[in-house]
Amino acid sequence: LDTGLVTGGSFIAVDWGTTNRRAYLIADGEIVGSLEDTLGILAVPSNGYPSAIAALRDALGDFPVLLAGMVGSDRGWKNAGYIECPASLRALAAGIRRVSTDIALVPGVCSIVRDRGDVMRGEEIQLLGAVAAGKTPADALLCQPGTHCKWVRMKAGAIAGFTSVMTGEMFALLRNHALIGSVMTGEVRDGDAFRQGVIRSGEQDLLAALFGVRPASILGLRHDADAAAYVSGLLIGADCRAQIGTGDKVHILATPSLGALYAAAIQEIGGETNLVDSHDAFCAGIARIWELIQ
Amino acid sequence: LDTGLVTGGSFIAVDWGTTNRRAYLIADGEIVGSLEDTLGILAVPSNGYPSAIAALRDALGDFPVLLAGMVGSDRGWKNAGYIECPASLRALAAGIRRVSTDIALVPGVCSIVRDRGDVMRGEEIQLLGAVAAGKTPADALLCQPGTHCKWVRMKAGAIAGFTSVMTGEMFALLRNHALIGSVMTGEVRDGDAFRQGVIRSGEQDLLAALFGVRPASILGLRHDADAAAYVSGLLIGADCRAQIGTGDKVHILATPSLGALYAAAIQEIGGETNLVDSHDAFCAGIARIWELIQ
Repeated sequence: LDTGLVTGGSFIAVDWGTTNRRAYLIADGEIVGSLEDTLGILAVPSNGYPSAIAALRDALGDFPVLLAGMVGSDRGWKNAGYIECPASLRALAAGIRRVSTDIALVPGVCSIVRDRGDVMRGEEIQLLGAVAAGKTPADALLCQPGTHCKWVRMKAGAIAGFTSVMTGEMFALLRNHALIGSVMTGEVRDGDAFRQGVIRSGEQDLLAALFGVRPASILGLRHDADAAAYVSGLLIGADCRAQIGTGDKVHILATPSLGALYAAAIQEIGGETNLVDSHDAFCAGIARIWELIQ
Repeated sequence: LDTGLVTGGSFIAVDWGTTNRRAYLIADGEIVGSLEDTLGILAVPSNGYPSAIAALRDALGDFPVLLAGMVGSDRGWKNAGYIECPASLRALAAGIRRVSTDIALVPGVCSIVRDRGDVMRGEEIQLLGAVAAGKTPADALLCQPGTHCKWVRMKAGAIAGFTSVMTGEMFALLRNHALIGSVMTGEVRDGDAFRQGVIRSGEQDLLAALFGVRPASILGLRHDADAAAYVSGLLIGADCRAQIGTGDKVHILATPSLGALYAAAIQEIGGETNLVDSHDAFCAGIARIWELIQ
């Protein structure tokens, strides 16, 4: 595949999201340098990408750059489009968009089933990388918690289909803007309040259970310090219950703290879990795409 | 019952909510004057109630005043407490809180079932008034759509139990603050998009269906002008499905426009509906409480 990228063993891989960015210097498949900051696409003006890339090279070295995530959307630098499911690392590599001789964007993945559509951008590298690195089976259910949690069905090592859920965004909406937000001041961690939320999510519809946070405070039925963890349990519980049944095994790609909450919820409702480090998975995936485009 | 209120055939009844207020001059059970404004409790300083009442009397006449709604909460003028379910008009009348010889507050209603609590304040007058006026049966399922939709089980003419759902507040949160809010610019009315939302609410979990609004826009699967009506259908559909089954009859107390949306959703999922004017119901209820405290 002639991509016009300078070939060689070393390159800079960037997982460039909406509010955060992680860059890795990868040499012969190994991470030899990295940086992480809050220079997501919202913080970069539309004409600011060349200088942002130059700054990355100042920090990590003057190497070719492979970009994934929201940087490849119409809100980012240039739109790299979407690969339709089933989507493999090979299909992503074949679909890269070249910006210059030594900078390229990886496309996202979309799913269209009848009138239901879904999109991801950036997560696909982690998902496919987890399989490529042998961290998850080639046929498995994967979950990437976050602002928009992804539930992904992998078949033969490719993304066969997926569903996005606004779990994390909903938590932030409620805490920052809802009437119940005023009592959602406590810490969110696994514990009795979180588990009660997970259990309640199986007993009552979500919009009613969420309203109940305020009367529970007014009537003294729950400590206000527990409200945020309880709401997190309600949302994560509702999210997991819609996707899995008893005995299902879920491979979770997440940071340790958020991964632990999902693992607790999945175990509470009878599923099994395997935690996979999402940074390692990203690097495995992007390194494989790099190999494929040489 | 000696309440200290000046007795007589005429009084001013106020349905005083968080953001709106409706006042009625009622003479011998008939509405002979009314006013409506946006002077909800959020717009009245804590020491501003005596002058607000004086202004009401300037407008409607120098009569005794009976206040219901959030004005009787700890965020309003004075806390009038709650009557526990089952709650009748007689129990509300017995629980009024006198502010002066000719001004009184009606308490709210609370429900505590094991560790689940719920509260209402103002809605109870409409609900019990609908029954007292013969607009709904003494044993029935009533629904009051709104910011916090109430589903109420009436038994022998009293409020036996109820559930509040943050349907209206969630719609506002999504439109004003969520990522999908940017496409929720169209009109909300009954039609194909609204009905599609009601149907989808039975096929997919709410947090996943809500996320789907954005990919549907990106992938061109739904006109952006239809997004707000579709989201309304999702939320109202999820709300109704959690409360009713096929063939259930729901008595809806609402303004005509919101009542029509709930009636459409309930009919779409196989229920039957009866629309009751909520203003008439309030006046019937508050007039009955007035009689009881003479």
